[in-house]
Amino acid sequence: MTSRRRLLAGGAAVAGLGVAGGAAVAATTGRDAPAPVAAAVALTTGTATVPFHGPRQAGIAEDPPAHASFVAFTLPAGADRRALARMMRLLTDDARRLTQGVPALGDTDATLAVLPARLTVTFGFGPGLYRAAGLEPPVTDLPTFKIDRLERRWSGGDLLLQICADDPLTVAHTQRMLIKDTRPFASVRWVQQGFRRSPGVQAPEHTQRNVLGQMDGTANPRGAEIEPAVWNQDGSTQLVVRRIRAEIETWDILAVADKENAVGRRLESGAPLSGTQERDEPDFAKLDASGLPAMPDFSHVTRARVTDPAMKILRRPYNYDGAPNAAGHPDSGLIFASYQRDIAQQYVPIQQRLADKDLLNEWITPIGSAVFAVPPGCDEDGWIGEQVLA
Amino acid sequence: MTSRRRLLAGGAAVAGLGVAGGAAVAATTGRDAPAPVAAAVALTTGTATVPFHGPRQAGIAEDPPAHASFVAFTLPAGADRRALARMMRLLTDDARRLTQGVPALGDTDATLAVLPARLTVTFGFGPGLYRAAGLEPPVTDLPTFKIDRLERRWSGGDLLLQICADDPLTVAHTQRMLIKDTRPFASVRWVQQGFRRSPGVQAPEHTQRNVLGQMDGTANPRGAEIEPAVWNQDGSTQLVVRRIRAEIETWDILAVADKENAVGRRLESGAPLSGTQERDEPDFAKLDASGLPAMPDFSHVTRARVTDPAMKILRRPYNYDGAPNAAGHPDSGLIFASYQRDIAQQYVPIQQRLADKDLLNEWITPIGSAVFAVPPGCDEDGWIGEQVLA
Repeated sequence: MTSRRRLLAGGAAVAGLGVAGGAAVAATTGRDAPAPVAAAVALTTGTATVPFHGPRQAGIAEDPPAHASFVAFTLPAGADRRALARMMRLLTDDARRLTQGVPALGDTDATLAVLPARLTVTFGFGPGLYRAAGLEPPVTDLPTFKIDRLERRWSGGDLLLQICADDPLTVAHTQRMLIKDTRPFASVRWVQQGFRRSPGVQAPEHTQRNVLGQMDGTANPRGAEIEPAVWNQDGSTQLVVRRIRAEIETWDILAVADKENAVGRRLESGAPLSGTQERDEPDFAKLDASGLPAMPDFSHVTRARVTDPAMKILRRPYNYDGAPNAAGHPDSGLIFASYQRDIAQQYVPIQQRLADKDLLNEWITPIGSAVFAVPPGCDEDGWIGEQVLA
Repeated sequence: MTSRRRLLAGGAAVAGLGVAGGAAVAATTGRDAPAPVAAAVALTTGTATVPFHGPRQAGIAEDPPAHASFVAFTLPAGADRRALARMMRLLTDDARRLTQGVPALGDTDATLAVLPARLTVTFGFGPGLYRAAGLEPPVTDLPTFKIDRLERRWSGGDLLLQICADDPLTVAHTQRMLIKDTRPFASVRWVQQGFRRSPGVQAPEHTQRNVLGQMDGTANPRGAEIEPAVWNQDGSTQLVVRRIRAEIETWDILAVADKENAVGRRLESGAPLSGTQERDEPDFAKLDASGLPAMPDFSHVTRARVTDPAMKILRRPYNYDGAPNAAGHPDSGLIFASYQRDIAQQYVPIQQRLADKDLLNEWITPIGSAVFAVPPGCDEDGWIGEQVLA
């Protein structure tokens, strides 16, 4: 396994197919020659890989790839710890292969596995999985916020797969293989597919815009700031996934100044209303020309403010854009995903302040909500969830 | 207009915002300084543009960008030629700006317009648009093929917008702006969103795979072959859009040899069963070791074969991947789009042969179908459809 990893690292995934990974390809195709697709992958976006093994799961602290699918499952009545352990051994094996550009053992379309494009598969356990295993859940459903209009079809879940890659066909193939292998153990509850800017459109250090045109993620912890906010000692973390519909019809008729007051930042530059550059620290004491706070008390930035670095959350959101209705009203918004050590200590107080008084609430509506404990990573001989289910 | 085009060509779209395009930005934001997003776009995928003006519409002969949205509209009863002309003047103006990275005049989120990422907007007119204008339609609905299981929600349409770009947020923004401006004139009939490989994953000259893992488009006309197959003298062409569901559940249990027989090509290499390289011309006379034709009579490649270059079609397909059902069965397939001079002469005979006897029919089901005449392009002072509606 170690030698395969070395082979596959550094974009040599295709060479790996003809060597250590060859068994899986040969089993599927009946041929053992190196895959002729090698000639097709001189470019680097497709062959880039993110290491799967380690004390923490991948897909959290890295720059988010362009495409994501969040897949939530419901366990059947009577699921027990031993079945869950079998499921996680199988899914871990699939993920460790697919993320390195190697087909899954039961891969029915091996040709689609060879361009991982920074593929990550991140596993989250909902409260129901712990209960099924006879354990106390480390996460509990969020309190009801008065702004919520939650729909069951976007909420809850016993198991979550967060599948991210810089290529949408890779995400589709990975989703299909992992769902296939999960079927004996659980049913699909919901799937949310989202996107960010394509590879090469914006450098990772630049903040991307969401469907409302707002720069989204300026205040995110970066580099060494991520550690105290996200990671527990044992390598675990916690994940909130919220589906937030953008009320674009009413947002679109706002004047730019009103949009900026709701957010607390300039639309074009992303600068706080108290400053001139995106990364300027908001100055909540500053007064504007009329003697009022430059950062309005009801603005999103003001309400979401966190000063203690250990109490921040790491936002990792994706846009969604469904089909508009016959009248042409969009079905767009944000798949809000945030990682934090402890949802109750970090996420809930922020969301409570936002729910109580955030002008932006007029133009966004939470319609889905789910929480997951994210277990530590694993090494070559281990599997995700072994600390919980073994 | 010409000077603006020159400014905007060659990736200088952001500089253009501060000069000729500045009016639109200033109107929306109340500020006239150059957009500070300039610093964010050192990379080239986002700023690349495709010229809008010319004797032929864009979005047809170029290498297809990674993302597409096909938006079909239904005209209301009583729509007349003058209203249609007003609609097309407005939509042409939107498209000529947005494709060059300049916000539309009524752009409510101008910040999302500055990264066109090879954006093209291509207009197609369905039979109903011609009838509303009191004209004889140059295209008629396809004959019923016995393999069809067409659903109204994916079929027909009086007006089509084909929106393509290398970035999904650009597609979403463009779709939203164009639908907004179409609303006074027509209602949304269907929207189909699709994808190909992300920028940088595969070189344009390499054939991409579809969700079934097949290389898709090997036999497409290329370079000078496109001219006789696609373009009429006046710069017009015709477009077929078919939604083809992949029956992945049954496809996935096939052995590779059976998949290859159904297609007539090797899965990995894309080579015809009579050859060894993807671009080898299929040899329909060649016999295999057992004395049978190497290219089975019932294979997709055999049935779709066209020898006269002027009778070929230019396929420009996109994959789709919707949400699977609770049992985990995928909702995936192909948004088949083909351009040809004349649908009746070129597309229909091919599709008839495929419908009559193509083993691949076992694993694909057409569930949507629409035809459009694609009028010529226009110059800086013109508008798409002026030959039809002026």
